[in-house]
Amino acid sequence: MTRVVALFGLAGVLGLLMAPGISIAQTTTDEAAKSPWGASDEIGTLNMMTNGSRLDILRQVTTGQVYDLGVDLFIGMPTCCVPFGDPNFQLFMTHTPARDTAKELLSYSGDGVSMYTHTGTHIDALNHFGLHGKIWNQVSAQDALGVRGWTKSGVDRYPHIIARGVLIDVAKFKNVDRLPASYAITVADLQGALLKQGTTIRPGDVVLMRTGLMTDWPDPEKYRLADSPGLSLDAAKWLVEAQQAMVLGADNFGVESFPSKDPDNFVPVHTYLLAKRGVSMLEALWLEDLAKDRVHEFLFIASPLKFRGGTASPIRPLAITIQPR
Amino acid sequence: MTRVVALFGLAGVLGLLMAPGISIAQTTTDEAAKSPWGASDEIGTLNMMTNGSRLDILRQVTTGQVYDLGVDLFIGMPTCCVPFGDPNFQLFMTHTPARDTAKELLSYSGDGVSMYTHTGTHIDALNHFGLHGKIWNQVSAQDALGVRGWTKSGVDRYPHIIARGVLIDVAKFKNVDRLPASYAITVADLQGALLKQGTTIRPGDVVLMRTGLMTDWPDPEKYRLADSPGLSLDAAKWLVEAQQAMVLGADNFGVESFPSKDPDNFVPVHTYLLAKRGVSMLEALWLEDLAKDRVHEFLFIASPLKFRGGTASPIRPLAITIQPR
Amino acid sequence: MTRVVALFGLAGVLGLLMAPGISIAQTTTDEAAKSPWGASDEIGTLNMMTNGSRLDILRQVTTGQVYDLGVDLFIGMPTCCVPFGDPNFQLFMTHTPARDTAKELLSYSGDGVSMYTHTGTHIDALNHFGLHGKIWNQVSAQDALGVRGWTKSGVDRYPHIIARGVLIDVAKFKNVDRLPASYAITVADLQGALLKQGTTIRPGDVVLMRTGLMTDWPDPEKYRLADSPGLSLDAAKWLVEAQQAMVLGADNFGVESFPSKDPDNFVPVHTYLLAKRGVSMLEALWLEDLAKDRVHEFLFIASPLKFRGGTASPIRPLAITIQPR
Amino acid sequence: MTRVVALFGLAGVLGLLMAPGISIAQTTTDEAAKSPWGASDEIGTLNMMTNGSRLDILRQVTTGQVYDLGVDLFIGMPTCCVPFGDPNFQLFMTHTPARDTAKELLSYSGDGVSMYTHTGTHIDALNHFGLHGKIWNQVSAQDALGVRGWTKSGVDRYPHIIARGVLIDVAKFKNVDRLPASYAITVADLQGALLKQGTTIRPGDVVLMRTGLMTDWPDPEKYRLADSPGLSLDAAKWLVEAQQAMVLGADNFGVESFPSKDPDNFVPVHTYLLAKRGVSMLEALWLEDLAKDRVHEFLFIASPLKFRGGTASPIRPLAITIQPR
Repeated sequence: MTRVVALFGLAGVLGLLMAPGISIAQTTTDEAAKSPWGASDEIGTLNMMTNGSRLDILRQVTTGQVYDLGVDLFIGMPTCCVPFGDPNFQLFMTHTPARDTAKELLSYSGDGVSMYTHTGTHIDALNHFGLHGKIWNQVSAQDALGVRGWTKSGVDRYPHIIARGVLIDVAKFKNVDRLPASYAITVADLQGALLKQGTTIRPGDVVLMRTGLMTDWPDPEKYRLADSPGLSLDAAKWLVEAQQAMVLGADNFGVESFPSKDPDNFVPVHTYLLAKRGVSMLEALWLEDLAKDRVHEFLFIASPLKFRGGTASPIRPLAITIQPR
Repeated sequence: MTRVVALFGLAGVLGLLMAPGISIAQTTTDEAAKSPWGASDEIGTLNMMTNGSRLDILRQVTTGQVYDLGVDLFIGMPTCCVPFGDPNFQLFMTHTPARDTAKELLSYSGDGVSMYTHTGTHIDALNHFGLHGKIWNQVSAQDALGVRGWTKSGVDRYPHIIARGVLIDVAKFKNVDRLPASYAITVADLQGALLKQGTTIRPGDVVLMRTGLMTDWPDPEKYRLADSPGLSLDAAKWLVEAQQAMVLGADNFGVESFPSKDPDNFVPVHTYLLAKRGVSMLEALWLEDLAKDRVHEFLFIASPLKFRGGTASPIRPLAITIQPR
Repeated sequence: MTRVVALFGLAGVLGLLMAPGISIAQTTTDEAAKSPWGASDEIGTLNMMTNGSRLDILRQVTTGQVYDLGVDLFIGMPTCCVPFGDPNFQLFMTHTPARDTAKELLSYSGDGVSMYTHTGTHIDALNHFGLHGKIWNQVSAQDALGVRGWTKSGVDRYPHIIARGVLIDVAKFKNVDRLPASYAITVADLQGALLKQGTTIRPGDVVLMRTGLMTDWPDPEKYRLADSPGLSLDAAKWLVEAQQAMVLGADNFGVESFPSKDPDNFVPVHTYLLAKRGVSMLEALWLEDLAKDRVHEFLFIASPLKFRGGTASPIRPLAITIQPR
Repeated sequence: MTRVVALFGLAGVLGLLMAPGISIAQTTTDEAAKSPWGASDEIGTLNMMTNGSRLDILRQVTTGQVYDLGVDLFIGMPTCCVPFGDPNFQLFMTHTPARDTAKELLSYSGDGVSMYTHTGTHIDALNHFGLHGKIWNQVSAQDALGVRGWTKSGVDRYPHIIARGVLIDVAKFKNVDRLPASYAITVADLQGALLKQGTTIRPGDVVLMRTGLMTDWPDPEKYRLADSPGLSLDAAKWLVEAQQAMVLGADNFGVESFPSKDPDNFVPVHTYLLAKRGVSMLEALWLEDLAKDRVHEFLFIASPLKFRGGTASPIRPLAITIQPR
């Protein structure tokens, strides 16, 4: 807690934990955007997927070798957000067989799980962060925030994600095991890494950045949000606006670099992507195997659980190498 | 509770809830089997998948249209196992933005989830049921049941499932919206439905039975485990032994018919599949769209979350029509 | 669910589960009251307790025999509010010793609990129900509802309750084991029972009504909120305004009679007591032992857990017979 | 985690988290004791309470001023056992009223709680720690450990605790704000403090030790289990055997000093008290107000919640100054 307070400021942490509507001086004109996909849109850029785009990428597969991009979920695992008051990961048995004996015919085991939805490898839905009371597509909390959660842009609205995936191995490009604490990846870093890799981004891609932070997994003292390297806002803008990426992801807890340089916004990349561009985010991805094998282009598949109104879902994406035809 | 007691017997329900090691007269010689895939095997028939089998089915795809086989997860949803003492589904906000005002720059929403792992569409892992103190591959609780769960055959060991899927629409074959309460599907039913559909099962298939119970979803008074129609033990044996199915699934809570006819075993199909054959089970699948479009053969993909030691994981499988080459 | 919908109406139940700010035609002029104990008051009538009042009742004790007014908390127990989307009761082991062996030096057992705060015998705090956006003492949600709960009138502000207790055995007065479903206790019932018992209420008393519903405990099909007998609004008013009771309690889930006769307010006694009079409520009390021994006046002690901002706390009150000096 | 591993050893922490029955070389002859109160006893020394003992202490009260010995329960609060894999404290709203508007008639608030039962001020039940597979009264896990918990010596069996309380202010005796990290209180410390205070312990007393650790509350980096000052085993023995204390408590997380000096037993005072002497333990008590007012003898009342089979319950004890007659 002490360290978190040092990084985010006491007022910030207390505010996150308990405070009612805090008034913040409006030093920004940012606001949530209207969707180009219409007034009823709740999924943003995921609308870029079509039957054609899915078939196209599926047809490029030339192997059945699967890369697993999800991490294990276990008691004691690193979590982004316990310092912000969120639950730690719990898996607990609700039916426990005897350990000792053949006397029972049935060895019946069952278990419950309790967790923050943003635990392990996961996807952030568009309702995770809004601006000035409105989320993506200018949906207001007044209209769409119910007694148990949002009725708009929850992860239950999300389709299966089947798209071309691209890995940008920034750590490798910088010749480090992992980027330094709080390093903010620049546009030049991305361009340099893509050039080195010989990879190009195409509109509609799922673009995954490797910071190397997973080399510290699962040490919770090292793999953490508070001073994580990640994308700069400029780099995020370049990927979305110039390259037309559909989804951004990374091997860290928040895609972006922490702590934020904006004193009024501790997650400027989140608000830019989710509220202003309708771009979903993939976090805590396991990219080590792809990186080791230098697989930079692939079929990407992820299937978010449909928590009704949920701001996130744990996912376990897969990747399969493609051979462009 | 009263109804559950009526169906399962008071001793049974109390036993499930609290009792220590109950001695049951051994009226069966059943015991967990040794895996043909070796002493270290924890996943059973999922070993049937190979790079070749995956590539083969991926190549048969001729469309990008995706069928979603997962249900929504929401407060108040039907659950199999609350009568057995398991937690109901909870999604609760841990960060709630103001509903009313533009005064806050950030509209920060986050949520926690608490649930039985066997909630909604899910996969049962091999450690869910054993016999006489041993699970699949004759792993004993003595050796592998830790303070927080099993160290063997948990769902964390599961690969992504990518295989040929087959739908057997039993309800349609029987010309009913849904099979009657407690109906036990016979081998003849399966054979008749396959013949009517013109479908054949191949070794390694994921075979999904449609009982039509999802036409009652999500009414918890009708969509329930206690008197669910489902597979008979004979039908399960035919699918696994004669047809060499890799995984069995259904649109009900337990694949098999309830209540069991075996007074000593309230889940004889579970113990047969999980403990004796190493066959994982898929439950509460949404098969209505496949059925409506008469899609009986497809690419099936599911990615279980890797809960370490977990007896199940919610999943959201997908299906894509194939055109056999 | 079906039964709940029948009793409360579909719109009502759906509204409770998920809907955002529903507009209700204002057919009442009710609003939360200003506290006579000042602008900073958060505990209402509990201010009636003083060192003098506590010492006075403590001194009237002439025995060390303790009556336990709390019920057990266990898996499968009746709950008021699962039909409204609240969690069921869970106690789950987080450290489980081996069952079989003396090989481990330590047999280490630990457990977690997950529950609605209004589970088993409990106290409702004043922030549980407000009117038109304001709780007791005209505290608005705008000002005092934070991201994780209320910052005012939570159960953490509550003192230990040490006061004179009075039991009104309405079931006994009506010569029934338990009052009929949905029976609404009248002022005449209370007056008749008090007369029969020879009991008088004094200002500052904790007044406990016995409906006899606990004779159905713990059958969740019979002990339930949906059609519970309980206080009428008139009877509640008489106790608070004419008799100056400090706290009201009962052996049912909601003190008041359900379903409400007011189509716009499904809990008129709750809003009257909590929001308009600052009177806390005690629910699901075990009064059977007091009733059997005809103990109608007693020292009452309850110690709510201080959940910060919480709307309720499970409690386990005690009673000791007094001999007025 | 790193720090915890340093203090407890890697094998120890991993063992606590996941491992199955670990064999430990038996370097001790310790075993759970048979109860002098008979074969069916589940509460140990709490049997020392009688109607006479309770009436005696109640009659010594000469004031109505109440000391509150319980701490607040809040998100972000210090917890003993998250490093051992236990859940952190969560209070989450399940009914959230609108913040902004008077349009809703009802402002309906409800909340769920999820926590380790050993959170905040709490009592340890006798089934919390046993030795070699048996808890207090030589009850074996084989016989009494059910699928959801113990069927013996759970906190549900506990009576209300009403007894003479004694505060031993060790920190004050040592002239420090708080005892140093890992300090182990000696018999001489206790005797010196009692002498200085002019206090004597009587058989059946609830004896509370003040280490001063609460002066660091609620800083989780300082108020923690890992290096907590507390009782030495010798001091615990002296209190129980020579002084015949009924219950021991303290203002730290574990009553005893951490880390343990016994390499085979990380909680030697726990196993001594719970398994060998049947003495319940009170932890994380708020003793600052008693200390400030130099109140060393008092009526002590605590009412554990009756979690069926539970190893602990949060409590909120109270104290009232007594004047011996």
